[in-house]
Amino acid sequence: MMEERVEIRLSGSGGQGLILAGIILAEAAILDGKNAVQSQSYGPEARGGASRAEVVISNDEIDYPKVTKPQVILALTNEALNKFKDNLAPDGIIIIDSSVKKADTPYKIVQLPIIETARDRIGRSMVANIVAVGVITALTKVVSREAVERAILKRVPKGTEELNKKALYAGYELVNQLT
Amino acid sequence: MMEERVEIRLSGSGGQGLILAGIILAEAAILDGKNAVQSQSYGPEARGGASRAEVVISNDEIDYPKVTKPQVILALTNEALNKFKDNLAPDGIIIIDSSVKKADTPYKIVQLPIIETARDRIGRSMVANIVAVGVITALTKVVSREAVERAILKRVPKGTEELNKKALYAGYELVNQLT
Repeated sequence: MMEERVEIRLSGSGGQGLILAGIILAEAAILDGKNAVQSQSYGPEARGGASRAEVVISNDEIDYPKVTKPQVILALTNEALNKFKDNLAPDGIIIIDSSVKKADTPYKIVQLPIIETARDRIGRSMVANIVAVGVITALTKVVSREAVERAILKRVPKGTEELNKKALYAGYELVNQLT
Repeated sequence: MMEERVEIRLSGSGGQGLILAGIILAEAAILDGKNAVQSQSYGPEARGGASRAEVVISNDEIDYPKVTKPQVILALTNEALNKFKDNLAPDGIIIIDSSVKKADTPYKIVQLPIIETARDRIGRSMVANIVAVGVITALTKVVSREAVERAILKRVPKGTEELNKKALYAGYELVNQLT
């Protein structure tokens, strides 16, 4: 999955912290010596319940910052999966939460209990975004573990660092258990 | 300033909350019934101290989300002004903090005590970003006051709503005092 340009689409509902997850992945990429653009587009479809944040990571300068063929799609809700599952790159993966009904798609789907892990193992469903960052990092290696940990510590609210580190590690473990 | 497409570049140093300011402006635009893209690009220049967040607002769908000819540039630091002051649209304005040394530029510059107002009037320099949102809203009317207030209340940490509303209003007042 370490191509020149990697596009990631994070989708779910508003309030799930997906913009922060995107910022963390982008800032981790910088720490790894790459370039990154993080963005959110709001249009007519954003007025529904589904929301998305996107990240482009590249070894080169990024001239076109829009995600058009993501290698990674995260979907934390049914609505997000249905709205944003399209145009995946041929070698890409769709990561969905256990609460999401698998869509009929020719692409590779990995289903993991991201929200449940945040709620039951970490005790805070609001860190599902960081569990998801751990899952994406462990599955795709698009950013290094060291960089993502530094980016998290820089970005999360003071006093929640340990909680968020636990959430990140819980995401890694979910992927370890797959194999 | 209400053209079809408005591009805004918010620049300063890391930790000044410019991404949040960009998200608030973008979400306010949506509440006004427009489309918006909010993004941050990280490249070699982002490894220095200057950071930027960008917003594109349009009545139409936004095909090209990158800011290339901003109508509005905010610069909260000298370094940010020097790095990001270029390519302003002919009718655009550059808004700089009072702490910033005026650059030699043919463009219209508006200088206001944004950081000082946050620190001394509101009592928290960390809300300089929201004072700046107030300044941009009052000067450019790119989003409505009602929408920006709703977007702020949705996005700022719980318990800081009143503080941030005060910061917004203080930004409006800075502009009122200009005339």
